[in-house]
Amino acid sequence: MDILPGGLYLEDLQEGQTFTTGSMEVDAAQIVAFASAFDPQPFHTDAEAAKHTFFGGLAASGWHTAALTMRLLVGKGAPFAVGLIGAGAQLEWPRPTRPGDVLHVRTEIVKIAPSRSRPDRGMVTLRSETINQRGEVVQVLTSTAVVTRRPAPAGELRKT
Amino acid sequence: MDILPGGLYLEDLQEGQTFTTGSMEVDAAQIVAFASAFDPQPFHTDAEAAKHTFFGGLAASGWHTAALTMRLLVGKGAPFAVGLIGAGAQLEWPRPTRPGDVLHVRTEIVKIAPSRSRPDRGMVTLRSETINQRGEVVQVLTSTAVVTRRPAPAGELRKT
Repeated sequence: MDILPGGLYLEDLQEGQTFTTGSMEVDAAQIVAFASAFDPQPFHTDAEAAKHTFFGGLAASGWHTAALTMRLLVGKGAPFAVGLIGAGAQLEWPRPTRPGDVLHVRTEIVKIAPSRSRPDRGMVTLRSETINQRGEVVQVLTSTAVVTRRPAPAGELRKT
Repeated sequence: MDILPGGLYLEDLQEGQTFTTGSMEVDAAQIVAFASAFDPQPFHTDAEAAKHTFFGGLAASGWHTAALTMRLLVGKGAPFAVGLIGAGAQLEWPRPTRPGDVLHVRTEIVKIAPSRSRPDRGMVTLRSETINQRGEVVQVLTSTAVVTRRPAPAGELRKT
């Protein structure tokens, strides 16, 4: 199995540990492009029409915020050796992402549960807040990721 | 507020009601393009490298499955007059979307809760299964959407 060089394994993690990503700016063109492909509703695709909707102006699709959050998390944000493989996720969008927002993600490990049936791995519950340049939370993502233990060196395997 | 012509209002909905979307095929190029932008991990971006990972072959990012689900839902899948505005969502990915999969979404209204503070709207809980061409569920999305009541005609407002 391919691994992320220098990535973390289950035994490297502890509850309460936090990771913070770099940041990324989102512009109106990106908001419209994503929404045109995946969530073509006027409040996500048309700045003028958006003024007369629930959002009162152009707002990113929540799924765009979720996808951007994943982009920020991959690599530095959740640096697990086998990558970030989610079995499930829970999302809240307290406010929308707007054009010009600069987002970063702060993740806390809230729970580590070693697997009973698969001793080589565990389920790690992560709480990731996506935060804009004003310090406002635009998304709270609670996800459960599969994280493997550090493989024993080949020599170790022969001994047992 | 702009409305979807012919769209449904809160009083048109009932618990147990179901909606089924059209279908959409996903190919390897789309899987790689989405993942390159938002989830650049080898099991989502490189068919050859993916063989040696947890997934055993190219698999769509769960966020791609979520975005495609939204694309299927917008319009026919959840035809609310004000559009589909989610306040939160819960996702499970029992298996990945694979290249060549043809997806559709079946949504059931599981709960309707009129708002106490905002009498013009309610919160509707939807359970949306994203299903591939083999009838296998690739995603279960439980979401809470804001749905407004049908506005009273101008004449009605004056009477009360």
